[in-house]
Amino acid sequence: MALDITASGLFPIAPTPFLADGRIDTASVGTLIDRYLAAGATGVTVLGIMGEAPKLEPEESLDIAARFIAGMAGLPVIVGVSAPGFAAMRALARAVMDKGAAGVMIAPVPSLRTDDQIVGYYRQAIEAIGGDIPFVIQDYPLTLSVQMTPKVIRQIVQDHASCMMLKHEDWPGLDKITALRGFQADGSMRPISILTGNGGLFLDFEMERGADGAMTGYAFPEMLADVVRLQKAGDRDAAHDLFDAHLPLLRYEQQQGVGLSTRKYVLMRRGFIASDAQRKPGGALNAPARAEVDYLLARLAKHDPRARV
Amino acid sequence: MALDITASGLFPIAPTPFLADGRIDTASVGTLIDRYLAAGATGVTVLGIMGEAPKLEPEESLDIAARFIAGMAGLPVIVGVSAPGFAAMRALARAVMDKGAAGVMIAPVPSLRTDDQIVGYYRQAIEAIGGDIPFVIQDYPLTLSVQMTPKVIRQIVQDHASCMMLKHEDWPGLDKITALRGFQADGSMRPISILTGNGGLFLDFEMERGADGAMTGYAFPEMLADVVRLQKAGDRDAAHDLFDAHLPLLRYEQQQGVGLSTRKYVLMRRGFIASDAQRKPGGALNAPARAEVDYLLARLAKHDPRARV
Amino acid sequence: MALDITASGLFPIAPTPFLADGRIDTASVGTLIDRYLAAGATGVTVLGIMGEAPKLEPEESLDIAARFIAGMAGLPVIVGVSAPGFAAMRALARAVMDKGAAGVMIAPVPSLRTDDQIVGYYRQAIEAIGGDIPFVIQDYPLTLSVQMTPKVIRQIVQDHASCMMLKHEDWPGLDKITALRGFQADGSMRPISILTGNGGLFLDFEMERGADGAMTGYAFPEMLADVVRLQKAGDRDAAHDLFDAHLPLLRYEQQQGVGLSTRKYVLMRRGFIASDAQRKPGGALNAPARAEVDYLLARLAKHDPRARV
Amino acid sequence: MALDITASGLFPIAPTPFLADGRIDTASVGTLIDRYLAAGATGVTVLGIMGEAPKLEPEESLDIAARFIAGMAGLPVIVGVSAPGFAAMRALARAVMDKGAAGVMIAPVPSLRTDDQIVGYYRQAIEAIGGDIPFVIQDYPLTLSVQMTPKVIRQIVQDHASCMMLKHEDWPGLDKITALRGFQADGSMRPISILTGNGGLFLDFEMERGADGAMTGYAFPEMLADVVRLQKAGDRDAAHDLFDAHLPLLRYEQQQGVGLSTRKYVLMRRGFIASDAQRKPGGALNAPARAEVDYLLARLAKHDPRARV
Repeated sequence: MALDITASGLFPIAPTPFLADGRIDTASVGTLIDRYLAAGATGVTVLGIMGEAPKLEPEESLDIAARFIAGMAGLPVIVGVSAPGFAAMRALARAVMDKGAAGVMIAPVPSLRTDDQIVGYYRQAIEAIGGDIPFVIQDYPLTLSVQMTPKVIRQIVQDHASCMMLKHEDWPGLDKITALRGFQADGSMRPISILTGNGGLFLDFEMERGADGAMTGYAFPEMLADVVRLQKAGDRDAAHDLFDAHLPLLRYEQQQGVGLSTRKYVLMRRGFIASDAQRKPGGALNAPARAEVDYLLARLAKHDPRARV
Repeated sequence: MALDITASGLFPIAPTPFLADGRIDTASVGTLIDRYLAAGATGVTVLGIMGEAPKLEPEESLDIAARFIAGMAGLPVIVGVSAPGFAAMRALARAVMDKGAAGVMIAPVPSLRTDDQIVGYYRQAIEAIGGDIPFVIQDYPLTLSVQMTPKVIRQIVQDHASCMMLKHEDWPGLDKITALRGFQADGSMRPISILTGNGGLFLDFEMERGADGAMTGYAFPEMLADVVRLQKAGDRDAAHDLFDAHLPLLRYEQQQGVGLSTRKYVLMRRGFIASDAQRKPGGALNAPARAEVDYLLARLAKHDPRARV
Repeated sequence: MALDITASGLFPIAPTPFLADGRIDTASVGTLIDRYLAAGATGVTVLGIMGEAPKLEPEESLDIAARFIAGMAGLPVIVGVSAPGFAAMRALARAVMDKGAAGVMIAPVPSLRTDDQIVGYYRQAIEAIGGDIPFVIQDYPLTLSVQMTPKVIRQIVQDHASCMMLKHEDWPGLDKITALRGFQADGSMRPISILTGNGGLFLDFEMERGADGAMTGYAFPEMLADVVRLQKAGDRDAAHDLFDAHLPLLRYEQQQGVGLSTRKYVLMRRGFIASDAQRKPGGALNAPARAEVDYLLARLAKHDPRARV
Repeated sequence: MALDITASGLFPIAPTPFLADGRIDTASVGTLIDRYLAAGATGVTVLGIMGEAPKLEPEESLDIAARFIAGMAGLPVIVGVSAPGFAAMRALARAVMDKGAAGVMIAPVPSLRTDDQIVGYYRQAIEAIGGDIPFVIQDYPLTLSVQMTPKVIRQIVQDHASCMMLKHEDWPGLDKITALRGFQADGSMRPISILTGNGGLFLDFEMERGADGAMTGYAFPEMLADVVRLQKAGDRDAAHDLFDAHLPLLRYEQQQGVGLSTRKYVLMRRGFIASDAQRKPGGALNAPARAEVDYLLARLAKHDPRARV
């Protein structure tokens, strides 16, 4: 099933589960898939920045992608293929598409600065992987230090018929959604799917600005799916009520560096994965942080019973 | 009244109020001072990054500082004196101390990278302003791109008897507070005051890690003062309850760039300042953002009546 | 005499001479002016990045500018007015124009990234200083970390009739000169003056690509003037012969940070200034570096008798 | 033959030769090896930043390394193994050592800022590849944006007995060599080999400051080997005479981005490689640049007959 511009809902950014000794925990991959499906995911994204992709051997990357493709019950699986060289990008992109991926996600290399450089990079990348693979633009300035204006995104969309989606992860980024939907309204850009990241920190308003859903890895994918659903149903206050209950924990998870440790710890406590181990180089929550997260979980449980662990 | 290491509570980062035509709104300076005192401020910081200091003429800077010093009823006023050259830093620092400031705040220049460069910069800066002026280290990597380890901060504290305070604004930064308090406990660093910034995004836990209070400009200084007070009184749950009610708005205000527009808009709606104008180059909330902030204020008012505007 | 697009030849970037105690050495300002005129300068630029401008008090900046304006025998004096805020930029720009400056030079603030941000910054800056002041775009990515494409420069030129010159300081930058002259040839950009910086490291070929001259502070302005003159006269081999003889020293001076110490040391040895002191924070050549520069001067003197010191 | 601290002379940074269609030109690998041996190389470094390593498939990387190991007549071959994840770094390091490499070279990841982060990164990297593999620290701030002080380098050297060499590529960097040799003299750091990079731009003085040789890819390795030899023999003036004759071309090659195109073009004209093609994304000299390089070669040939092409 190929990715197209109607994609919406929740595409969790899947972490890669590891055992304490650094091997991939394939059993937990299965559990993750079950939980994502139960949470209402409409797709999944693997081998993203928060998926510890650079620490995987090439065959491990392929294996992870294949397991998700096999398990996700026909839902679209997007695979991150960002790489310093186009040869590796092409090799991984072609291989995962052969295995049934719905599309690939490409982030710009951090050295890009000018508008022309960014547009040119995507032109070369798509030439490398081929124009037949549906792709997602990853726009994540806080981590990648590449700033794409709405005009640059429009140019990439117009240059490449295979561009189906923007993973929107700018911060602040609400006006960017409004600008892009404005380009669609004035006819200067064809429609695309916009899913938002940043751990969900602005998902409440991103939906109101025109996002189609969320693509992020917050440890309660159910909440993300619910907020998307409630906003689409016009139930604004209920969406914000649920979102606000989660915000103290979500904000804690949305710290640079510490974030993945928090996310894996909560996913472990919730039974989504067996261990919160990261492959080296990696971190782990220390005792004070674990106590803080436990306290946040206990407080959240008063509003959302799914937080009872 | 000189700043010393016992400083605690709430030092709001004061915005500079402007009229629509760009002149300083001195009447609003007086209103701001009254509101800060009523909110429970224990001091104030002026001419910070969020105070639009670089847009002021030298005589305006001095005038603003003098007005706060005169109005704050003897409470300590800290003045930001960061500058590309030490001559300007010295001139402003000596002038505001002559007028009665309690101390000055110094941020590192963005080009610093290595530990030695940072320590050396503070050595030269203190040599320039003089060792008799109490000073605050501003540690704000997200904006300044200078990363100070706890060891570097300790070195600066130990090098300079006139260092009284850290404005802690790292993100993530909870472990930095724990590390610094650990240095005090093991005797390797003399005690200092630690007030935290970042718009208050982690104030709830920063107090539990050992912070003495807040130094930030969130548009509800009452909440910041209350959370500090409740945490010091051991009323943890009440502190978090109040904090969590404000978090949706606080998170909105804590956006890079858009943040100051949000802050000034809310302060205007609350009657703290007459206009949300910024001096050029500056921004303003657009219509969708104003509507979002209004919605957040209405939601907040259900939990905190001070948000009724 | 107002700066216009016919400016060419050599505009030295003047250092600010200091006495050992940090005061400005006004006598050496006079000597510098005499030597620049003798060297064939057709103008001069003061208060640039290498002029230690941020370390000057506002009245000192004005005084330096006024002395050069008075001394340069009617030749155009360009004054650097880059500043974090537009108020200070405007104040200095208007003041030096009142004193007879020919124009001002404006560098982008380092935080700018996207094409739109850069173009927008110049729009706001020119609105601030006024459209009646001739100005120079400073394009210096290595130090400012702002990358302007030829298209961005063209946009700024077309937006502002008061833009007269590009200080070209990109690296590598030869193709940028070719691109801009191409824009003039195809009618998409009106003509401007292009003077090149980077310490002169590519002046030999920059002239062949279409530059009008040099704007840099290499300690042998005579060589820069000669190379410009020889290239304009079509005496290519002679230009390169002279340039190549200086390149070992020029390359030494063109080191980040160490460069200004080297330049002031050579200018001192040549009698252009009385002391190589920098105002704090500043550096000085250590003994091994001085010995290396002395050796380079001795070797250069075999080819160019002006290096006998 | 394992790399040790006595390594000296010339280790060229080998480019990877490609055919016009993007395949590796294995015939040219053989030619390159012959020319390096004839030029007086005492070793070689492959898969460096200028070797287009990130564009190679893993098996290609191994194949390139194996060809150099087989061809270099028992001289040490150093292999660049820098990678975003330690798994890939370990896999490549172990594989090339099995094939007979003398050691590996590791650059820090660009996100590192503080001294502790850099020291910690090397600790984790060496734990990953194993303490039995001789390794080289690559210190290249201009490209990697990581600044290592002499103290940080000393710490890494003292932490790891397997650290044999520094590839010194700081700019400016002469004082760093002096500082490190000073650490050896005062007994605070054990001796290491220091080979210098930066295209050779300061090789003349680096040798006088205490470097053991050059590790860079300038298209005339003969010159690099000669300058190292002459300086070691105490023939200072002859070393500088030869160096200065090459400096105009060397400076041209030492441009960011354009540099590799220049290098490959000259190597092609000299018969070291059959084509100057780069694998995508890559560049090529345009016509004006080729004409400039040809002119520089013709001028150089008057001083050094090896430049007659």
